[in-house]
Amino acid sequence: MHKFMNPASVALIGTPRRTGPGAYNNAEMMLRYGFKGRIYPVNPAVGEILGLQVYPAVADIPEKVDLAVISVGRDRVQAAFEECIRAGVKRILIISQGFADADERGREFQDAIARRAREAGVRVLGPNTLGVVNNYVRFNTAFVEVPCPERFLPVSLIAQTGFIQVAAENLAWRNFGKAIDIGNACDLDVVDALDYLEGDPQTEVIVLHMEGLKRGPDFLEAAGRISRKKPVIVLKTGRSKAGARAALSHSGSLVGEDHVFDAVFRRAGILRVLTSSEMKDAMHALAVLGEMKGPRIGVVTVTGAGGIMCADACEDHGLTFGALPPGLSAALKQGIPDWIHVSNPIDIWPIGMIGGHYAESYRLCLAEFLKSDGIDGVLAVFPATDSPLHTDLKLEAAFAGARHDAGNSKPVAVWPYMDVVPAIDRYEAIPGVACFDTIERAVRGLSCCRQYHRLKNRREPQPRRFAVDGAAAFELAGKGKKEGVLAGQDALGLLACYGIPAAAGSEAKSLAALREAAKGMKPPYVLKLAGRNFLHKSEWGGIVTGIGNLSGLKAAHQKIAGNVRAKDPGIAIDAFQIQEQLAGKEILVGLKRDPVFGHILACGQGGIYTEVFRDVSREIVPVDGPTARAMIESLRIWPLLKGTRGEPGADIDGLVEIIERLSFFASENPDVAELDINPLLASAEGCRAVDARILWENAGEMR
Amino acid sequence: MHKFMNPASVALIGTPRRTGPGAYNNAEMMLRYGFKGRIYPVNPAVGEILGLQVYPAVADIPEKVDLAVISVGRDRVQAAFEECIRAGVKRILIISQGFADADERGREFQDAIARRAREAGVRVLGPNTLGVVNNYVRFNTAFVEVPCPERFLPVSLIAQTGFIQVAAENLAWRNFGKAIDIGNACDLDVVDALDYLEGDPQTEVIVLHMEGLKRGPDFLEAAGRISRKKPVIVLKTGRSKAGARAALSHSGSLVGEDHVFDAVFRRAGILRVLTSSEMKDAMHALAVLGEMKGPRIGVVTVTGAGGIMCADACEDHGLTFGALPPGLSAALKQGIPDWIHVSNPIDIWPIGMIGGHYAESYRLCLAEFLKSDGIDGVLAVFPATDSPLHTDLKLEAAFAGARHDAGNSKPVAVWPYMDVVPAIDRYEAIPGVACFDTIERAVRGLSCCRQYHRLKNRREPQPRRFAVDGAAAFELAGKGKKEGVLAGQDALGLLACYGIPAAAGSEAKSLAALREAAKGMKPPYVLKLAGRNFLHKSEWGGIVTGIGNLSGLKAAHQKIAGNVRAKDPGIAIDAFQIQEQLAGKEILVGLKRDPVFGHILACGQGGIYTEVFRDVSREIVPVDGPTARAMIESLRIWPLLKGTRGEPGADIDGLVEIIERLSFFASENPDVAELDINPLLASAEGCRAVDARILWENAGEMR
Repeated sequence: MHKFMNPASVALIGTPRRTGPGAYNNAEMMLRYGFKGRIYPVNPAVGEILGLQVYPAVADIPEKVDLAVISVGRDRVQAAFEECIRAGVKRILIISQGFADADERGREFQDAIARRAREAGVRVLGPNTLGVVNNYVRFNTAFVEVPCPERFLPVSLIAQTGFIQVAAENLAWRNFGKAIDIGNACDLDVVDALDYLEGDPQTEVIVLHMEGLKRGPDFLEAAGRISRKKPVIVLKTGRSKAGARAALSHSGSLVGEDHVFDAVFRRAGILRVLTSSEMKDAMHALAVLGEMKGPRIGVVTVTGAGGIMCADACEDHGLTFGALPPGLSAALKQGIPDWIHVSNPIDIWPIGMIGGHYAESYRLCLAEFLKSDGIDGVLAVFPATDSPLHTDLKLEAAFAGARHDAGNSKPVAVWPYMDVVPAIDRYEAIPGVACFDTIERAVRGLSCCRQYHRLKNRREPQPRRFAVDGAAAFELAGKGKKEGVLAGQDALGLLACYGIPAAAGSEAKSLAALREAAKGMKPPYVLKLAGRNFLHKSEWGGIVTGIGNLSGLKAAHQKIAGNVRAKDPGIAIDAFQIQEQLAGKEILVGLKRDPVFGHILACGQGGIYTEVFRDVSREIVPVDGPTARAMIESLRIWPLLKGTRGEPGADIDGLVEIIERLSFFASENPDVAELDINPLLASAEGCRAVDARILWENAGEMR
Repeated sequence: MHKFMNPASVALIGTPRRTGPGAYNNAEMMLRYGFKGRIYPVNPAVGEILGLQVYPAVADIPEKVDLAVISVGRDRVQAAFEECIRAGVKRILIISQGFADADERGREFQDAIARRAREAGVRVLGPNTLGVVNNYVRFNTAFVEVPCPERFLPVSLIAQTGFIQVAAENLAWRNFGKAIDIGNACDLDVVDALDYLEGDPQTEVIVLHMEGLKRGPDFLEAAGRISRKKPVIVLKTGRSKAGARAALSHSGSLVGEDHVFDAVFRRAGILRVLTSSEMKDAMHALAVLGEMKGPRIGVVTVTGAGGIMCADACEDHGLTFGALPPGLSAALKQGIPDWIHVSNPIDIWPIGMIGGHYAESYRLCLAEFLKSDGIDGVLAVFPATDSPLHTDLKLEAAFAGARHDAGNSKPVAVWPYMDVVPAIDRYEAIPGVACFDTIERAVRGLSCCRQYHRLKNRREPQPRRFAVDGAAAFELAGKGKKEGVLAGQDALGLLACYGIPAAAGSEAKSLAALREAAKGMKPPYVLKLAGRNFLHKSEWGGIVTGIGNLSGLKAAHQKIAGNVRAKDPGIAIDAFQIQEQLAGKEILVGLKRDPVFGHILACGQGGIYTEVFRDVSREIVPVDGPTARAMIESLRIWPLLKGTRGEPGADIDGLVEIIERLSFFASENPDVAELDINPLLASAEGCRAVDARILWENAGEMR
């Protein structure tokens, strides 16, 4: 991709003959942006544009250009593309829209271009893209005039749209240094762009805008590797559409698409933001401030009310107030009345005004916070003003001095108010100081620095392997693949082959056989309908619990048979399942195979509350022990699982191991489409699966 | 308050002798702000400041001033205050800090001032305030230089801090027209300020910043009345635990439980915002756009990716996309290729660029959306640029024309990008058009307009009265007041007097008497410890459920007695409670008396999940039927209460009536401090209280 971003020479196919107002002439825009490379407009009807020689065809250009940019109507794109290939161009950027973004015919055009590119060994960016921006060499392929920014951040954008790079100035205060609009990504995609930016010394932070993804594992691998070196921020849009799709099927609602992206980003060490305001704060914080190693901040403010707003924001964003450095309170209180309190947040206004040493006091607070082992970052609030009456309120020297005194790089987030715009440049000239729009957003910026530190240093999963009862597993999985689905004792049996314990149980048809089975079990029993006709047992009235003895078993048998007859006299009952009834908290553990990312493992509250509280955590397979434990601890029912008010907790170690074993099951059974253990009963005595259902690929119609 | 904001003459007590840099001279600031009233600095040591005559004492001022502003050290405030009173001043603003915000001595000073003010018939604003701003007459009491804004919104701020009015320019794009910092509010408080702004024709929107409140019912009454005429927005800080602690020390405010404030604001029709960014968007939207009558918006965008971001934001903020007006698609598609789709959001860029009528197409979309009965408001996204190459992208005429064509005042929220700052003034000059920082924030702005419409037109509660078994209620309530607490059958009995049904039950000491009671009930039974020594029955092992018959009752009786002996051999059991065991969903219904706002009624999920899921809705008493229903429907367990998957729902009408009756109970028993019915079992057969506990005021030590 390097030469896409840094071409020495560019052919522009489809440059209009007109220039000036309303012409959208890309050659003109490129010149005005200040690009110093060689520009070759191609247009058979024109001889010269703005002093540039125009060529009738790509083949007429006197050199083999580094990059060709095609912006003609969609019906003429393929011809132009062939012309570029014939002329030996190796990199082609297709601005034109009307491809997979439009209709079936457009999709065919696009597929043909992608195929032809592979054959010819050329790389394509687009179609349906605004192209690339590289402010380091003043290169921009946009057909709309955007002024080249004087200052920009070492942040590179990869987007599925051009509007973010065009709107960057007001979205981001400081522009991106580079931007790549991958458009429909018929060839080069987000993974290729990531690979390029990984080694790019001008890129210190990567921002992704994403609507969807195709190469899931490649993305996970690349982003996971890069996020340990450079922050990767993502704005994944289409959250709401994903929600709608997730609601389609029952299990779909458990592992909805957007949840999958949450799990993907967590695994890949990517910081997810939900809105463009958050994107602005995250990129600004990470580009200017970098990491923050802990959650404890020190706050210097000129307003007590602002300190309270800061406290609210800290709780919203997972930060805390660190302890006041020893000695600081005494130093600040010299010569000021007793009734002025010093705590963190420090309200420096009364101290500075009454003591008469505002800037010196401010500097002291900043320096002591930055030096303190108990403080990971600083938030500073102050009025910034160019009023000639308030030269004593200028704090640039205090900030620079404190940074120098402390001699470290802890982040300092600043909210200057009043004359903000000139203040930003002055304060951000001090290393490690970044300005934000509001107090709350400054806190959010620091929180991004904190999150990045954790993401960068996250554990790599170390999944375990387990012994499997291979012969039995082969047989049951074979049956499942053939029939598309396993339920009841078969499903529990296959899980047992992988060491996942189940309630004692058995399947049989006759009451006599069920009584025989019951004799080997401990009452109370549960009797359930079994067999493929009755996957939704409860809708058939097919479950009786609390059966205390063999006569109760008979009654239950009759009751279920009667329920089934009443609902459908023609249907035959193949078998019943009898189980020991267990006590415990109802848990759900499951798998769903995402078409892009593979198996997603879910763990959450089971039973009737599953869909009401949606208290589920999800991770990409493989899941190791510590991750499994973190999944469980992240649930809202965690306090109940852990045990409260003298009630004993559930066997958490056992539940962790079941999740690890299920992850191993997934890696050994890549063709399993869905698996639900619901409920799994978790008590102090252990965790055991009570009901399970396993679906194989292409078994959708059997659900 | 009118003359606090519009004084013809002001005395400034404590004006420093110095002026210029670093002097913080309030007379100088007032002059520079452009105030045209008469200013009388008071300072015995100075004869003249900046051409103003300075007086040795307030009594020397040649007229009785409308307002005196005191800004001297706290120890000299009382003397200055007396001086003002002696001189006949009726309005005194105390800037000085160090009062209830500082320490006990400061609180005493403040109380003395408040007392003296009442005696003398003067009104006081402060202490610990930056004072007031009235940009309509260029009046500002701040001792820091803030330039008077050229343009401002018809929005007035009431705050417990001065920093928001000082920071308004960057928090709010456009400043407040008026601002009142009530400081410690020793006399004039938020209610007085609201009363003033209610009738103030220059105030169209009111923004409150609040850390706590004292006059709860007065506030509810005033805000509830005003919010039907003008939007009232609140930024209530100290939401978090840390923030609440900080607020306590900052202004000495008593910060109540945050969910109580949620209920208060809902009842009073106030729009609550959580951050200063939200405050900015809400005040801007409501001042410029006003109400939006429904949730259906039409979106015109130049970017498909932005349309997706808009969809996400709509879901986040409760808005939807309305239907495309009939005929609009056909009109737009004239002369453009088939593959360009038209739907809502409308991506106007390809249509405008290929069709060559960008501004005309934009105007058509805006006008048709505004005219459509299916659209309540419009979101418009476009690049705003002053580039001479893009005069064809200017849309001011399109916006103004569409507004004219439509002839109504539906709100139009705009996100212009690229050259934003000059665009804001141009677009906001068009009536009903407001600019926002990002797409998402524009959606949030529209959502505020929608919320305000609902708040303005909210129902007034119409609580019912019920018949009471007065004699029995008098006796039981008397016992409760005397002992501080009622539990078990007594508590259920008092509720029954108010028509709240309970599980059949009885209390007795001997097994024989319990057996006798059981004979009149339907098994299974529950046996529980009763009496004041055992308020936490489960910790004593004092509950046995599922008792099937009289022999089971005996075993249960022995078991509980054994559990108690094992835990404390010396304690006597006064009585047991026997009840019919009910099935159903566990619900919690309760009351808590807030010291500021009176009784709060809560309804939520009961049982072991109460504290885990905190699925509770709360309202201020009185609660009427429709409000009770809304409370129930707002719970996350609502789908389970309503009934799902063929399972019958609970008796919702019965639950609604219980809430109404409990509200009536609260109004008849104002001295009840806390009441919990937990659980109340709700099933298709009805809703009945199973356990209850009622505490009276000053019974804290008995809990």
